[in-house]
Amino acid sequence: MSTPQVAVAMDWGGTWTRTAVIDRQGDILWQSRAPNPQGGSKEEYLTNAERLLATAIEQAGGPVAGIGAALAGPVEPTTGTFYQPPNLMVLDGVSFKALWEKAFDVPVFVGNDANLAAFGEYYFGAGKESADNGRPVKTLFYVTVSTGVGGGVVDRGSVFLGANGLTAEIGHTLVDTTDAALVCQCGSRGCLEAMASGTGIGRIARAKLASGGFSDSALASLGADQVDSEAVFAAAEQHDPLAVSILDGVVSALAIGLTNVVHLFNPDMVVLGGGVTDGLVKLDLLSQIHRQILDRAMSELHKDFQLTSSRLGDSVGLTGAAALVWDQLGAGG
Amino acid sequence: MSTPQVAVAMDWGGTWTRTAVIDRQGDILWQSRAPNPQGGSKEEYLTNAERLLATAIEQAGGPVAGIGAALAGPVEPTTGTFYQPPNLMVLDGVSFKALWEKAFDVPVFVGNDANLAAFGEYYFGAGKESADNGRPVKTLFYVTVSTGVGGGVVDRGSVFLGANGLTAEIGHTLVDTTDAALVCQCGSRGCLEAMASGTGIGRIARAKLASGGFSDSALASLGADQVDSEAVFAAAEQHDPLAVSILDGVVSALAIGLTNVVHLFNPDMVVLGGGVTDGLVKLDLLSQIHRQILDRAMSELHKDFQLTSSRLGDSVGLTGAAALVWDQLGAGG
Repeated sequence: MSTPQVAVAMDWGGTWTRTAVIDRQGDILWQSRAPNPQGGSKEEYLTNAERLLATAIEQAGGPVAGIGAALAGPVEPTTGTFYQPPNLMVLDGVSFKALWEKAFDVPVFVGNDANLAAFGEYYFGAGKESADNGRPVKTLFYVTVSTGVGGGVVDRGSVFLGANGLTAEIGHTLVDTTDAALVCQCGSRGCLEAMASGTGIGRIARAKLASGGFSDSALASLGADQVDSEAVFAAAEQHDPLAVSILDGVVSALAIGLTNVVHLFNPDMVVLGGGVTDGLVKLDLLSQIHRQILDRAMSELHKDFQLTSSRLGDSVGLTGAAALVWDQLGAGG
Repeated sequence: MSTPQVAVAMDWGGTWTRTAVIDRQGDILWQSRAPNPQGGSKEEYLTNAERLLATAIEQAGGPVAGIGAALAGPVEPTTGTFYQPPNLMVLDGVSFKALWEKAFDVPVFVGNDANLAAFGEYYFGAGKESADNGRPVKTLFYVTVSTGVGGGVVDRGSVFLGANGLTAEIGHTLVDTTDAALVCQCGSRGCLEAMASGTGIGRIARAKLASGGFSDSALASLGADQVDSEAVFAAAEQHDPLAVSILDGVVSALAIGLTNVVHLFNPDMVVLGGGVTDGLVKLDLLSQIHRQILDRAMSELHKDFQLTSSRLGDSVGLTGAAALVWDQLGAGG
């Protein structure tokens, strides 16, 4: 019997659950997206997930090699147990590996979504592109700059998990130690997430407008509930000074956080993903971030890294989950 | 023929070169220390090093399993090539592995001294002690707080090397983003090393005294050339307010840097070594650093780490170099 050439992947976020059928090249052959049963019980969540997986397996049209799942929260690496996920607390303590291996009789591999996004970029995204161009990547640091800010590290083909699988939380590294440092949703002050996330950008813009003195900004003509990160990016494209200065702060905060990452992980590739990154790319601000890191880096070998944007976009979690299946089953699995 | 039960270890710093004979338990059976030929040529340095190694091999009194060397500077992991070491520039580009394997006909393993210090603590120091007490360590982050500030990471028994072996440079992570941030010797501002190293502590004390207003401090009665980190620690032991406030700043800077490390590496053990750490331990300030990190840590799983001081003291580099030999040769090697 020939080895199955497709995996089923799931990307389980706080709001949506995506499923896909993905081949060994990382190509998505089929995919679907469904809302979580908001406010539902643990059983409703689990039944819903199993139905989505069953549908994907059906869509595969033949045997699947395994199931890979990217979960929005801490995942214990060995057992695949979800641990106090802030956006999916109803699933605290569930061991998906045991549950789904029993239900579907295929190997199941589970990981944190930011870790698996790094894995996806390494195997099928920016890392693969670099390898194809003759420059294989040893250490890839992935950062998602979106509603929140998270990350993942892949070193020599393996996700760096630390003691509990909770590495690369760059969103909660300190990048502002001044008295004016913003309070983060984690309770600390001066975190990168408070300054560079979509949520943070909107909050900073509203606070600036409320403080007065920016009546000539295009943002001042909007209602407070319309002032979000998208509005800031749109205004910056029109060279609105307030919007531009807010994004200068985002660039500077990301550069500080990434300088620390460069000195601590010595990556040869840094990949930025997420909606805020898309906005920064459009305004050609990634090159500014890169330059600020190079200005601060302590040695030539630390400066020797590529900074690039995600190749996989919204599919990075799904693709990473599939990469986990292929990796864990081995090349001949 | 039985397998040799001793390794020869070298710790090559900017000023001194130490050599030792070390057994499989990490016990130092013999050791010696010699000054570097300051201002000497590359050949003088190399001849000196080979003579020291030959003496150590002679002292071993029988076959040695291999040579391990901890070098003060960047080391390319595969070839053991020294790369632009700031304190040993005369040795730039030397590949010690090839050189010494030819000269001594035994396996040679070379690494950066801070990385190998982490390795030594993992195998024979605080990590081993924790394992012996039933709590094996997965991810150990070692920081030396001494003349400078450096570090190393060991994850599941392997040094985390990143792309070029230059990881864990916590001394050059930013912990002060205010306008008053101190300039670091690396050229950047606000680095941990500028605030918490022995050099930094002395410089801060002299600057405070020069700014006036501290005439009642015990430090004010010293000549400027006597105001160094040792003097600050001695004054703090006598509750001198200026010295105590300077060390409060050191504690706070280390806590910020280590909070970032905890969020990025998710270690289950943090080990602090070096002379400044000895001073902090004496004043019971490690517990303050620990508490400040716990106050900032984003989740219970991130708080789940031990913070402790080095068990190996000055021998941490030598012991780590020997651990590298035993590790690379394998348990039965």
